Amino acid sequence: MSFVSIVIGSKSDYEVMKEAANTLEKFGIKYELIITSAHRSPERTSEYIKEAEQKGAKVFIAAAGMAAHLAGAVAAHTTKPVLGVPMSGLNLASMDSVFSTLQMPSGIPVATLAIGKAGAVNAAILAVQILALNDEKLAKTLLEDRKAQEEKLINDSLSVEVRI
Amino acid sequence: MSFVSIVIGSKSDYEVMKEAANTLEKFGIKYELIITSAHRSPERTSEYIKEAEQKGAKVFIAAAGMAAHLAGAVAAHTTKPVLGVPMSGLNLASMDSVFSTLQMPSGIPVATLAIGKAGAVNAAILAVQILALNDEKLAKTLLEDRKAQEEKLINDSLSVEVRI
Amino acid sequence: MSFVSIVIGSKSDYEVMKEAANTLEKFGIKYELIITSAHRSPERTSEYIKEAEQKGAKVFIAAAGMAAHLAGAVAAHTTKPVLGVPMSGLNLASMDSVFSTLQMPSGIPVATLAIGKAGAVNAAILAVQILALNDEKLAKTLLEDRKAQEEKLINDSLSVEVRI
Amino acid sequence: MSFVSIVIGSKSDYEVMKEAANTLEKFGIKYELIITSAHRSPERTSEYIKEAEQKGAKVFIAAAGMAAHLAGAVAAHTTKPVLGVPMSGLNLASMDSVFSTLQMPSGIPVATLAIGKAGAVNAAILAVQILALNDEKLAKTLLEDRKAQEEKLINDSLSVEVRI
Amino acid sequence: MSFVSIVIGSKSDYEVMKEAANTLEKFGIKYELIITSAHRSPERTSEYIKEAEQKGAKVFIAAAGMAAHLAGAVAAHTTKPVLGVPMSGLNLASMDSVFSTLQMPSGIPVATLAIGKAGAVNAAILAVQILALNDEKLAKTLLEDRKAQEEKLINDSLSVEVRI
Amino acid sequence: MSFVSIVIGSKSDYEVMKEAANTLEKFGIKYELIITSAHRSPERTSEYIKEAEQKGAKVFIAAAGMAAHLAGAVAAHTTKPVLGVPMSGLNLASMDSVFSTLQMPSGIPVATLAIGKAGAVNAAILAVQILALNDEKLAKTLLEDRKAQEEKLINDSLSVEVRI
Amino acid sequence: MSFVSIVIGSKSDYEVMKEAANTLEKFGIKYELIITSAHRSPERTSEYIKEAEQKGAKVFIAAAGMAAHLAGAVAAHTTKPVLGVPMSGLNLASMDSVFSTLQMPSGIPVATLAIGKAGAVNAAILAVQILALNDEKLAKTLLEDRKAQEEKLINDSLSVEVRI
Amino acid sequence: MSFVSIVIGSKSDYEVMKEAANTLEKFGIKYELIITSAHRSPERTSEYIKEAEQKGAKVFIAAAGMAAHLAGAVAAHTTKPVLGVPMSGLNLASMDSVFSTLQMPSGIPVATLAIGKAGAVNAAILAVQILALNDEKLAKTLLEDRKAQEEKLINDSLSVEVRI
Repeated sequence: MSFVSIVIGSKSDYEVMKEAANTLEKFGIKYELIITSAHRSPERTSEYIKEAEQKGAKVFIAAAGMAAHLAGAVAAHTTKPVLGVPMSGLNLASMDSVFSTLQMPSGIPVATLAIGKAGAVNAAILAVQILALNDEKLAKTLLEDRKAQEEKLINDSLSVEVRI
Repeated sequence: MSFVSIVIGSKSDYEVMKEAANTLEKFGIKYELIITSAHRSPERTSEYIKEAEQKGAKVFIAAAGMAAHLAGAVAAHTTKPVLGVPMSGLNLASMDSVFSTLQMPSGIPVATLAIGKAGAVNAAILAVQILALNDEKLAKTLLEDRKAQEEKLINDSLSVEVRI
Repeated sequence: MSFVSIVIGSKSDYEVMKEAANTLEKFGIKYELIITSAHRSPERTSEYIKEAEQKGAKVFIAAAGMAAHLAGAVAAHTTKPVLGVPMSGLNLASMDSVFSTLQMPSGIPVATLAIGKAGAVNAAILAVQILALNDEKLAKTLLEDRKAQEEKLINDSLSVEVRI
Repeated sequence: MSFVSIVIGSKSDYEVMKEAANTLEKFGIKYELIITSAHRSPERTSEYIKEAEQKGAKVFIAAAGMAAHLAGAVAAHTTKPVLGVPMSGLNLASMDSVFSTLQMPSGIPVATLAIGKAGAVNAAILAVQILALNDEKLAKTLLEDRKAQEEKLINDSLSVEVRI
Repeated sequence: MSFVSIVIGSKSDYEVMKEAANTLEKFGIKYELIITSAHRSPERTSEYIKEAEQKGAKVFIAAAGMAAHLAGAVAAHTTKPVLGVPMSGLNLASMDSVFSTLQMPSGIPVATLAIGKAGAVNAAILAVQILALNDEKLAKTLLEDRKAQEEKLINDSLSVEVRI
Repeated sequence: MSFVSIVIGSKSDYEVMKEAANTLEKFGIKYELIITSAHRSPERTSEYIKEAEQKGAKVFIAAAGMAAHLAGAVAAHTTKPVLGVPMSGLNLASMDSVFSTLQMPSGIPVATLAIGKAGAVNAAILAVQILALNDEKLAKTLLEDRKAQEEKLINDSLSVEVRI
Repeated sequence: MSFVSIVIGSKSDYEVMKEAANTLEKFGIKYELIITSAHRSPERTSEYIKEAEQKGAKVFIAAAGMAAHLAGAVAAHTTKPVLGVPMSGLNLASMDSVFSTLQMPSGIPVATLAIGKAGAVNAAILAVQILALNDEKLAKTLLEDRKAQEEKLINDSLSVEVRI
Repeated sequence: MSFVSIVIGSKSDYEVMKEAANTLEKFGIKYELIITSAHRSPERTSEYIKEAEQKGAKVFIAAAGMAAHLAGAVAAHTTKPVLGVPMSGLNLASMDSVFSTLQMPSGIPVATLAIGKAGAVNAAILAVQILALNDEKLAKTLLEDRKAQEEKLINDSLSVEVRI
């Protein structure tokens, strides 16, 4: 069985990361979602990663705020693609979670997405893009989604546009 | 035929991005590498992306500095995974290339890696991780690379470590 | 026919960018306004730019937030002046949209204005300043507007000032 | 007579801003270049602006570093387009000159370009774009320059590219 | 007659800068307060500075936000001490007003105080400190104010403190 | 008698720093808490530090915002461990209090914790960790607290998790 | 046996962190020093931490650059005090290593010191301060070191000072 | 006797701060210069401030880098004007010394000047401006210096300027 694993560093990030789950569901992708922390439950995290990988996790999505080590901690325990979503925070203009997720050392990549909800959705879409490399139907759905985005934008435009 | 496409925004980024090419070669992954710009050659860029996709490009790696739009421009023309590498710059502490690559809107993901050489290597490894999802031999090579990294680090440690 | 083209990256930026439209109207300048995205509708964007230019667009105003590529994408498809307005965002203190709009490579200028409403108004005034180079009546109106600004400021001062 | 006026805040910025002058020359645009400061010679600055405008200055390019007030000071004394080039500095990652040039209040626009040499060249090109609105030959030269940029980039690519 | 001149860049800064006026009043210092802008009313600004100096202004306090040029513009027209107060803004974490006020070139000092209300009060106190160099009674009042601050703090402490 | 001393720079920081006191109480650690300022009551601060040290203070926790000198001022008067908590502020994304607390010169350490409440709690726990080096019972309580944190996180996870 | 454990994330950080080792030696404190990474050798890291703790490690010093997770990873596996030293980097003005080390979540403290050499020395001194809580001789040595620092500074002053 | 007191936080700042001394000398102002630290010699600092004030110090100039507390520490012990000069540093783009010097709490002002040499010179000139309030000859010298600055700038301009 093939699925995407979503790990969230704290319950306070759940509302945002539900968007990743919803997006995966929209594309018909199976997923697991658990809360686990690089700092509060490091062994649970490493054990879960290995277990999920054995069960068929193909891509990991990891979301955390502040000193956001979770994506890096996941990446340290798997060679599957790890997608990191920096959470928005009250201080430091969210640069803390961005830089902590992004600046991984040579050899251990984390694919970092935008901050917050945009990143949650995009991590899910990137996971779909990865899985679609071997799933033509999924690839087609991605193209349709892209088209739908453009149509929505054109409709948005029509509601306000001024043409000469 | 399946390959990774590396697009570079300017010749000045070539020295850094050669690391991505070298890393792909180390893993035996076929790649293309061209210089094309979101701003100086927008049509060349969009045409190349479509052509590369038709030829079999599975993953795109895009590198640019300053207002680093290249990865986003690639992502706008494909639903294949796009990996962005922000180049280091003399001003703004490289925040310009990081934020321009990272902060993509909901719906059009770019997977952003670390700044400069670490990001170049990691983009290549992430591409390998993606391709390895359907290539067991490649997956094994990734595990060996990971082990080799750890061994190198242990050797580094032995050359300086102090134990009681 | 001569006009200013306003392109907006997302409907959420419309409220702010209406200020640009209102300012152009105040100066009696014809304008078009559409929503189009560098990422969600790249072809619509490039086609629109060319079409608008043929119809007589003299200046483009482009507004986007986050990884604000829209102004750069417009600039890549025209040699008419392109004025970029970075939108205010919740994260990164809006440095993402500023740096993404501003740091264009040598050869492809984007004229960046202040963040948000001030920038929306100023992009419109700058467009008027450009058009006024060949329109003496418009040039006079600009001087009157400048005088009116100063008068408003003096009135503001009178309502609170303390003199010895 | 129609020309572009380049004002520079300090002699130390001359080497960078010569690029603006050279670029204008390349396009056959007449220009003046003087050093004057918003802080060290405020009256010289305001008098020069008025005098230059009377002599036929159509566009002003103003370059300064640190608390870069020069472009704003020029904009305060003219309703002609004012293009600001923030100089690179040793401290604050050049954010001081960028923010000081960019964040003009509603009503008094400064068109800010990229930091340093890229901005110097781009200010000149933007000035040419503005003047080309009423000069078809110049407009054609801009298109040729754009094409030349793309060709240079393609040649750069050919010197390193790898194709499958 | 000797007094402090407070110049404010925009009516929106008045609420904050009233604190400077109130603080001067508390110390029995005469002051003027007007709204004038480096950009919207540059001549009014330079004329006012000279006039105020002739009437007896000993210290100038200048407050502005965003590209906060006002203090620098005042400093360009007087050799009296100029105290700058950066206003808090919605974007760029207020770094724009801080850096624009602070980073003056060698030769034309602006004494920059903290952002917002703390800076407004402190500009007034600094003005009092300057005037007190030749006014022993004022110097004594400053010492009393300092003592009162400490007493308030001790009272604050008493309301919450825990001692062993 | 052995205790932890909490010094707070301003009454406005009390609500946040009560968390440090509450955390110490939870671990059964005696503490003092006073408000004193590096700037408004420098002598009170240095006298208190010496007095507290003589009474048995083993660790100091110091919290301040903006130009947060309090922890450094405490560190200047004792060779006991000093733990600094930067307060969250309205401007500069709280970088002012972080950098002012953190960047101590070689020779005079301040142990800086996270911004705001997380830092307040963590300063208390770090103090407990230090005291537990010679208190086995306390060391055990720390392990239990760690376990409780993990259990809470697992419960949080159970309330939302999706497993395959 | 009681000692301080120094863990370093990469060989490139060794030159800086030797200062921590040298400082501990100066105070006669036993230490271990190894290179281990949160990302390249996560199990080695967690096993080492437990082993070191059993052997008598009282304090951990962890140094890393970029997405500096090492101190947090150490803190996740011990309840002994963990002191983090952010390494200086070429990009992001070293904000990446500072924010990644500092912004730990409530419950898992890392005591962050200054960037680079000052932080390396200060981590060692802080470790000594912690151990000195139960070692009067060591406490005395700390006071002597403090006095020596002041004397060095006075001598530095004498070599340049100007007195009236 | 009336003089300016310059206090420097570390010998490494001496080369930069000599500019302040040289500038005072140029204006014929008596000064003292010593090295003293808010952290390494807090009592020496507070004693010196009081002693200097008794001897006739009218203005204090304080320079420090990193967590630059020196100006604040001086301000805590005097009600004379305190001028702070943030030193340039290798990390954090010198934001640490700027924010630590600038963001003083309401009630205890520090007048912050630009970073490094420009700030050193400007602190001296500001001191002269303050003293010149009661010294007409000095006031005249300031005007002459201002004129000389403008003349130097005009000469700089003449060496490069292009006029039509």
